[in-house]
Amino acid sequence: MRQYPRPLGKLINELSKLPGVGGKTAQRLAFHILSMEDKEAEALAHSILEAKQTMRYCSVCGNLTDQDPCSICEDKTRRQDVICVVESPRDVMAMERIKEFDGLYHVLHGAISPMDGVGPEDINLKQLIVRLQDSDVKEIILATNPNIEGEATAMYIARLIKPSGIKVSRIANGIPVGGDLEYADEVTLLKAMEGRREL
Amino acid sequence: MRQYPRPLGKLINELSKLPGVGGKTAQRLAFHILSMEDKEAEALAHSILEAKQTMRYCSVCGNLTDQDPCSICEDKTRRQDVICVVESPRDVMAMERIKEFDGLYHVLHGAISPMDGVGPEDINLKQLIVRLQDSDVKEIILATNPNIEGEATAMYIARLIKPSGIKVSRIANGIPVGGDLEYADEVTLLKAMEGRREL
Repeated sequence: MRQYPRPLGKLINELSKLPGVGGKTAQRLAFHILSMEDKEAEALAHSILEAKQTMRYCSVCGNLTDQDPCSICEDKTRRQDVICVVESPRDVMAMERIKEFDGLYHVLHGAISPMDGVGPEDINLKQLIVRLQDSDVKEIILATNPNIEGEATAMYIARLIKPSGIKVSRIANGIPVGGDLEYADEVTLLKAMEGRREL
Repeated sequence: MRQYPRPLGKLINELSKLPGVGGKTAQRLAFHILSMEDKEAEALAHSILEAKQTMRYCSVCGNLTDQDPCSICEDKTRRQDVICVVESPRDVMAMERIKEFDGLYHVLHGAISPMDGVGPEDINLKQLIVRLQDSDVKEIILATNPNIEGEATAMYIARLIKPSGIKVSRIANGIPVGGDLEYADEVTLLKAMEGRREL
């Protein structure tokens, strides 16, 4: 096979390192980039460089931010007495999209997973305990993912914090809205039954 | 909804302009880029800039290249007497992958499409006629796509060139290898029957 011209091959190679981008997609993206206006392509390249240079983790909550502390931690109009604990910055974004929660966050950057050698000291947990000292926090909402690692992490944090008297809650499991009972797995259905509420 | 931090929002916005990349995918790619090593992200950004700066169209055949004339046009070990006419540089790549054709190419950068206001003068066709003058070309293989525009373009070029005595051929239509007769559309099946060869 004739090789791609070197700069094109290099671009395809770099693009194919992105998640979900295989060889064919990388080629398609590369050709698209070559067909873009010069300044559009430059905007794309510069946005990558700028994001990498300016985005960092908030020293308070661990969320992705371009200022420290992040705008959520800085926002004094938000409730200061409730912290929602999530695994990743993407979870913060998801939570913010529902426009319901107006407390603070804490991003663990992972979940406890003994199988993968990830212990409590490997996630951003110590910082949460530090935050709770001399604070007015009344409730910790554990919003780690509902899988083995997320559950284990939630249980661990609950046990760690409960003795201090702070209320610890866990987000509900159940059938997704718009979902189909028939296709729900048994564990989800069981959780939905357990979590039923009187109307 | 709380806005993304500005540099992140900008990156997501730029990524979402790529073909096949929606909002969710752009977000996923952006978070991945932020989690990449600095030098990996820089390599990606620089490969975009470098490709845009160095890649151009070959002045002879119209293929994408980083040198002019392109390496295929320059390659004197290839047959100089047969030109394969395709719609786009990606078609050249596809053709090169089969490692069978070792003649030259001509890239039209489109196909005749009166519906879209694209006439013969809007594609890279005049240059093909120029190439044929005083050349040793004995065969033109029309490898435009087997759709309405590609067929119309092939017919147009065939009529244009045939009077000069150069052999003009068209790639075969038929059932794709590994394909299923049962699921082939009627036109394809008809073409496959018409194009049958004695064994």
